[in-house]
Amino acid sequence: MNAELISVGTELLMGNIVNTNVAFLARECTAAGISVLHQVTVGDNMERLCDAIKTALERADIVILTGGLGPTKDDMTKEAAAKVAGRNIVRDAHSVERMLAYLKGSIYKEVPENNYRQADIIEGAQVLDNDNGIAPGIYVEDALGKKMFLLPGPPNELKPMFQAKVLPILMSFTDGILYSKMVKLGGISESVAETKILDLITAQTNPTIAPYAKNGQVWIRVTAKCSEEEEGRKILEPTICMLKERFGEAVFTLEEEVSLEEVLIGLLKERNMTVTTAESCTGGLLMGTLVNVSGASDVIHEAVVTYANEAKEKYLHVSHETLKRYGAVSEQTAYEMATGAAKLAGADAAVGITGIAGPGGGTKEKPVGTVYVGCYVNGVVTVEHYVFRGDRRKIREYSVNYAMDQLRRAILASH
Amino acid sequence: MNAELISVGTELLMGNIVNTNVAFLARECTAAGISVLHQVTVGDNMERLCDAIKTALERADIVILTGGLGPTKDDMTKEAAAKVAGRNIVRDAHSVERMLAYLKGSIYKEVPENNYRQADIIEGAQVLDNDNGIAPGIYVEDALGKKMFLLPGPPNELKPMFQAKVLPILMSFTDGILYSKMVKLGGISESVAETKILDLITAQTNPTIAPYAKNGQVWIRVTAKCSEEEEGRKILEPTICMLKERFGEAVFTLEEEVSLEEVLIGLLKERNMTVTTAESCTGGLLMGTLVNVSGASDVIHEAVVTYANEAKEKYLHVSHETLKRYGAVSEQTAYEMATGAAKLAGADAAVGITGIAGPGGGTKEKPVGTVYVGCYVNGVVTVEHYVFRGDRRKIREYSVNYAMDQLRRAILASH
Repeated sequence: MNAELISVGTELLMGNIVNTNVAFLARECTAAGISVLHQVTVGDNMERLCDAIKTALERADIVILTGGLGPTKDDMTKEAAAKVAGRNIVRDAHSVERMLAYLKGSIYKEVPENNYRQADIIEGAQVLDNDNGIAPGIYVEDALGKKMFLLPGPPNELKPMFQAKVLPILMSFTDGILYSKMVKLGGISESVAETKILDLITAQTNPTIAPYAKNGQVWIRVTAKCSEEEEGRKILEPTICMLKERFGEAVFTLEEEVSLEEVLIGLLKERNMTVTTAESCTGGLLMGTLVNVSGASDVIHEAVVTYANEAKEKYLHVSHETLKRYGAVSEQTAYEMATGAAKLAGADAAVGITGIAGPGGGTKEKPVGTVYVGCYVNGVVTVEHYVFRGDRRKIREYSVNYAMDQLRRAILASH
Repeated sequence: MNAELISVGTELLMGNIVNTNVAFLARECTAAGISVLHQVTVGDNMERLCDAIKTALERADIVILTGGLGPTKDDMTKEAAAKVAGRNIVRDAHSVERMLAYLKGSIYKEVPENNYRQADIIEGAQVLDNDNGIAPGIYVEDALGKKMFLLPGPPNELKPMFQAKVLPILMSFTDGILYSKMVKLGGISESVAETKILDLITAQTNPTIAPYAKNGQVWIRVTAKCSEEEEGRKILEPTICMLKERFGEAVFTLEEEVSLEEVLIGLLKERNMTVTTAESCTGGLLMGTLVNVSGASDVIHEAVVTYANEAKEKYLHVSHETLKRYGAVSEQTAYEMATGAAKLAGADAAVGITGIAGPGGGTKEKPVGTVYVGCYVNGVVTVEHYVFRGDRRKIREYSVNYAMDQLRRAILASH
């Protein structure tokens, strides 16, 4: 079964708000085994709205509309859907009651007439009570048995209504579900990753394989169509196994919601290690990212940003000689930054980052994007040399992601 | 003139990512006087992609496609657009050169073949160079003179390309130009800002006034329809004047491309002041943000992340007594962090941030989102108490933006 999502609202067409509802609905439908093939956004315009609904009913089994159920004149989703389905609009006593109860003791002395419009539904439709607002949701089938859901636009009304009221109905339609894993890779470029699995991607049927680049990380989604989770796990197993085999330790997780920083912090906790950082070109972004992980305080106590050479000497005791002979952006400096940071914080692991984020400061030998990352792990130091492309922001984001992965690998390699 | 926006990507259909590009493009087109009547999202599927393009070309004057220009097999936007326009795909020597230059000396030893696919363009199309990535943008007209733009999906590539390369072309289509200023506010909430100008927003015709919330900043776009810039300036003047009057020093710039961190760094340079930071809950994000400004090294030499209490004592000499009596998240601690940081770095200005980013750690007196920011400016310290709402990430972003603005105001207030 497949669904089409129609978002209604001029504020979306004008870009005044970002459409988070559609991402939510798409994720939920996909997880429920319903493929979303089209997402459409139209404004509060009767003709274009009707056309969008007609088109959707022609090419999809399920049409989910969000927005345009409000009390004002430019809320016309119900009217449009009723028109296309050839049904009338009727006032729903049950919804009127709920609306009055909802507004009881609210700011209004008496309920404005146009609030009653929100209690109107499409004749013969099933009402989906709104537990977080006034406008009820509506589920209706057209003459050909195509299914239409009309849901309120406010996310805090839409999301709970979808999960509590719509999902159970959707589940009753589908035979199969989709089961997917996200193979996340660190320290590898999208093209290199892609090249390594081109054969698998070309041959894909079930499961499907789709790589995405994520500023210095590569995520590969592997999705199986199946009747239930256990079967899905079985279908995915060989592919996951091959990906692990081909990418080895570049794989840092198989879970969509697990981030590289979480894996890294988890690894440090598991080994009872503390970590610190000494950042130059990234200026605190690396530590700022690690601290994103709640509970990071177990392994992180302190860190320094040593942007100036003087600071590198003052805090990390990078030797003046090193800075003079090799420069602040050099393997030697990165090495001394990592060891110096570990000593300063008395930490078991430390990362030193120095590089040229640009736009200025590049040379022929050391172009903009040149970054050295030193990792100290229990006395062993490894330094990697990277050259990233892009603007200042991108170079710094890549630096953070590659540094985190380098530390992760260094910890795994240590005993 | 009207435009249709087509977003291409299975990750969008599956809801893996929120589509922020379409909001950006819609806002930009609307501001350019081009109405967006439809937004459509389709997956990496040749047939559905071609259908979407055909339909769009029938009902819109301009079709803007984003995504699907990457190096991988499932990137097929160019092929689809070429097919619909009845053109061939040709390899563009200029783009090959740029791609090789871009990748020169980068992480891969040799350029994977599939990167070359990104240098392919539609025959007879205009190439829009990508200054932040490999895939060039493409501008092509079909037989009927309908206009198609193919743009890369990554926001950091799309946005600069749109503003630098696409907007000028769009402008050449529309009679009259749009002249706009972005009044950016710091240290004020969106709802408060909106209330202050509700009358202006309600009465708006030319210029138009549109506020946007930006994680702790509020941006108000003021746009005039005019025949040329000078006229635009005249039309905007009274409105800009009223906004400045109503928001006073909350206004930190009128320029879209100028960021709060740039204003702050500029202010410090202008006053020959150095700045440092001592961060707890933000863990380096504040300094990481300041370092975004190229040339920040003139005013930034060092900073510390003092996440643990011990670190606050060790680096900043926050008194043990203070931490014990008032707690790490308190006005007193923020005060001592700011003064301690200034002393440690010998800086003229310093910011100390301590707060509860959550999800855990909140209490009745100090709920999650409680943040204290201390600003030291030439010996004078001010501490502000904030309570932000949202998840850990949002609370930390708000903290960074409010802290930057607090420092900006403190510097302006100092003599």
